[in-house]
Amino acid sequence: MAESGFSGVLVPVLTPFGRDLKPDANRFVALCKGLLEAGADGLAVFGTTSEANSMSAPERRELLERLVDAGVPAGALMPGNGASALSEAAENARHALKLGCGGVLMLPPFYYKAVTDDGLFDFYSAVIDRVGEASLRIYLYHIPPVAQVGISYGLIERLISAFPQTVVGLKDSSGDWENTRGMLERFPGFEIFVGSEAFLLQGMRHGARGTITAMGNINAAEIKRLYETWQGADADALQEHITAVRKIVQAQPVIPAMKALLARWTGDQTWATVRPPLRPVSQDVAAALDRELTAAGFRVPEVLSVATA
Amino acid sequence: MAESGFSGVLVPVLTPFGRDLKPDANRFVALCKGLLEAGADGLAVFGTTSEANSMSAPERRELLERLVDAGVPAGALMPGNGASALSEAAENARHALKLGCGGVLMLPPFYYKAVTDDGLFDFYSAVIDRVGEASLRIYLYHIPPVAQVGISYGLIERLISAFPQTVVGLKDSSGDWENTRGMLERFPGFEIFVGSEAFLLQGMRHGARGTITAMGNINAAEIKRLYETWQGADADALQEHITAVRKIVQAQPVIPAMKALLARWTGDQTWATVRPPLRPVSQDVAAALDRELTAAGFRVPEVLSVATA
Repeated sequence: MAESGFSGVLVPVLTPFGRDLKPDANRFVALCKGLLEAGADGLAVFGTTSEANSMSAPERRELLERLVDAGVPAGALMPGNGASALSEAAENARHALKLGCGGVLMLPPFYYKAVTDDGLFDFYSAVIDRVGEASLRIYLYHIPPVAQVGISYGLIERLISAFPQTVVGLKDSSGDWENTRGMLERFPGFEIFVGSEAFLLQGMRHGARGTITAMGNINAAEIKRLYETWQGADADALQEHITAVRKIVQAQPVIPAMKALLARWTGDQTWATVRPPLRPVSQDVAAALDRELTAAGFRVPEVLSVATA
Repeated sequence: MAESGFSGVLVPVLTPFGRDLKPDANRFVALCKGLLEAGADGLAVFGTTSEANSMSAPERRELLERLVDAGVPAGALMPGNGASALSEAAENARHALKLGCGGVLMLPPFYYKAVTDDGLFDFYSAVIDRVGEASLRIYLYHIPPVAQVGISYGLIERLISAFPQTVVGLKDSSGDWENTRGMLERFPGFEIFVGSEAFLLQGMRHGARGTITAMGNINAAEIKRLYETWQGADADALQEHITAVRKIVQAQPVIPAMKALLARWTGDQTWATVRPPLRPVSQDVAAALDRELTAAGFRVPEVLSVATA
């Protein structure tokens, strides 16, 4: 099995939109740089948290080019390339590879439901074939609560066996620790990232590679600390605090809530914009969240308010 | 409420792919012309049956251009423009309008789940706003078994009220006659198409505008006859036969099964190709289906074997 350069804490970066709902490359570059500065090991841009599937393929590609042009190290980027069309998923992957990205995070096709593992295997195979580059590194993206279409153990097994140099890892956003544990046991060496930092400590104890988590957008430094000290005496307490922070934010719709918090911290209300079908949360909600987070001992990462202002 | 030119039997045309999985414009043009010749009143190209969401936006647009260039009357076209990204849905709609299409069939955004009617209203509004043309005619596409995200009565009410000249109709593919009946009662004048020809007679008796149905790909003439004679003495018997034909095909995965039948009837095996994540059915399955259909009194439409050869 091939190894990639990814490990630690990766952030599915929030995508800023202007009031006209167009992607805002300047704010995006600023946030990405801020997150790396805050301690993120990599950026899984264009994930679910990024509202990636609310953007067209050209919009995604342009943002990615702007990041690389602005000096964000391409090797630290694991953009989502997934789409319901294999032609689009392949073109996104080829584009990411050309820019030097370290890998791509690939959803299964998510329009048709009740598809078979054979059909999903065909889909991944066709994309790999179309990209046609030995340097391609694919991380499977398992997020059944949203995509509905999931990635079974059997499918992973077949993909690893057919493409050992290409299909190198997976993000598990099932929200089900037992599923993650099963994968970690069955596929040693496969680079598994827990999709929630609430499972980070358990994950590390079972051989996970790290986490790719929405909360990294606001809490990257603390999550990184847990990643670095998971064998230390304070790990359980740190995990508990990180999970408490998560629970506070999760009581709201997470994407709009984190954007509203960024808007509040930076004093830049444009940050609160989401693309339909998502809806923004109000400044009052953000204020209440902020108070609750502060009461729980959460400190606003300085780098966020500076970098995205 | 504005009126469109659509009524009767519309076909969500199967999209042919070559062995290389690329869309095949020549076979597509031939099938579209054949279906109109067979009696279809319009072509709802790029529906679920068309594997539209398995194609990229440029692939869909190119196929549409090829149709119009080949002389298929644009006014008879109601292409699916839906996408999970509003920018893409808007661009598809603008493109269709520019080519002169009579309307578009628009899915709700289908990536995020459990979204609100407010969010869906925002989505449709943003697309209408971006297209910015008074001549746009949108048919809502309600297909919760696949898209998961559905279109509620409340959402229809708000859209009709806000955009009476633009949001003019709906295709109901819920598979639930009670839902269709409720819509027909609540929204008189709204152009409702039943998403299955099994509901055509009931639909016509309650004021439906016609049907947009997968089975039109193989059984357009007979369905059209029911549409034209629904008030006649033979209507119930005709409906029964049409439904029996549907049930035979539905015992298989419908899209691959219809493609395999076309392959068999035209002697052109390329027709059996589907794009992953769908999987083709075997020639044996097609042969068995064909026998069952023949036994049920179904006759292969001559125009299909001629037009797509």
